[in-house]
Amino acid sequence: MKLLEDRIRQEGRVLPGGIIKVDGFLNHRVDPALMRALAAELHRVFPEDITTILTCEASGIALGEACAEEFGVPMVFAKKAKSDNIEGGLYQSQIFSYTYKKTVTLIVAKDWLSANDRVLIVDDFLANGEALRGLVEIVNQAGAELVGIGVAVEKGFQPGGKKLREQGVKLHSLAIIESADENGITFREEA
Amino acid sequence: MKLLEDRIRQEGRVLPGGIIKVDGFLNHRVDPALMRALAAELHRVFPEDITTILTCEASGIALGEACAEEFGVPMVFAKKAKSDNIEGGLYQSQIFSYTYKKTVTLIVAKDWLSANDRVLIVDDFLANGEALRGLVEIVNQAGAELVGIGVAVEKGFQPGGKKLREQGVKLHSLAIIESADENGITFREEA
Repeated sequence: MKLLEDRIRQEGRVLPGGIIKVDGFLNHRVDPALMRALAAELHRVFPEDITTILTCEASGIALGEACAEEFGVPMVFAKKAKSDNIEGGLYQSQIFSYTYKKTVTLIVAKDWLSANDRVLIVDDFLANGEALRGLVEIVNQAGAELVGIGVAVEKGFQPGGKKLREQGVKLHSLAIIESADENGITFREEA
Repeated sequence: MKLLEDRIRQEGRVLPGGIIKVDGFLNHRVDPALMRALAAELHRVFPEDITTILTCEASGIALGEACAEEFGVPMVFAKKAKSDNIEGGLYQSQIFSYTYKKTVTLIVAKDWLSANDRVLIVDDFLANGEALRGLVEIVNQAGAELVGIGVAVEKGFQPGGKKLREQGVKLHSLAIIESADENGITFREEA
């Protein structure tokens, strides 16, 4: 999606180790007009009947909220359990957080996801794909149907996207970064 | 705001200890149409010139995003530091989290808040007011102007709202719960 690629080129910063900072418009300061445009594009890509947008706290919530409004359905955001003392009535999935270098448990109350749901998962970023793997697992635990996954920025040089596509998931990333270094950012053509 | 009070009466649940669960539409599953209505009402209450909506991860982000779009300005969400290893270039404020029974550091990158900003803080919930106290401190660190605070649900029987009003902050809560027990939920009239 050219709008997003242009924004990443203009305002993104590449840090050592292939870290791409887009915190000026996507995941610390958020541009609501951009979120609206991304949500509208995801609605175009996923015309299927959707009952729930599922995302993950914290930085998926802004895009999730815009998508929920665009699709006219509720958004559910998985919480990251802060303690080992987890109540019952929850779907849960353990993921490895590369950001925090530790295992985190994603939880969703069973009240808000059921076998009747047709789910679109959305997230701001896809790199190793651990958060999305956990969200897919939660959709499966609920017996809900996974319609697809919509992502704002995928790091195509990390394995998450490839793994999900090989599983047959309909994954659409609005911008796929093929490489990022001191020479600039290159995007995959088909995105 | 009658729309929100009705929704709390219909779908809120009161747990022992005065805990009010509104996680079906406000802070786990989120109703985007309700967020839009709350954001429009906050825009009516705060007609002032605002440059930034400031909120706190995670459950403030959905309302923050709707407000940002409504006001036509960026949203910045404070992050909760996950380690003691905090980089430079950040405003930070220590708050006590009653949910997690521990001290948490709120952080905002200095890049995204400056003395030129006129800030509306928004959050989904106000009880003891620790998160809002931290956000006000960050606005002050930035030298920005605090225009006001907009909250969806205030627990009027806890001290946060009173403390902020006594400091002269323009605080508007869209629903103020005066009491909540097995007999039901009572709202403060002026909300």
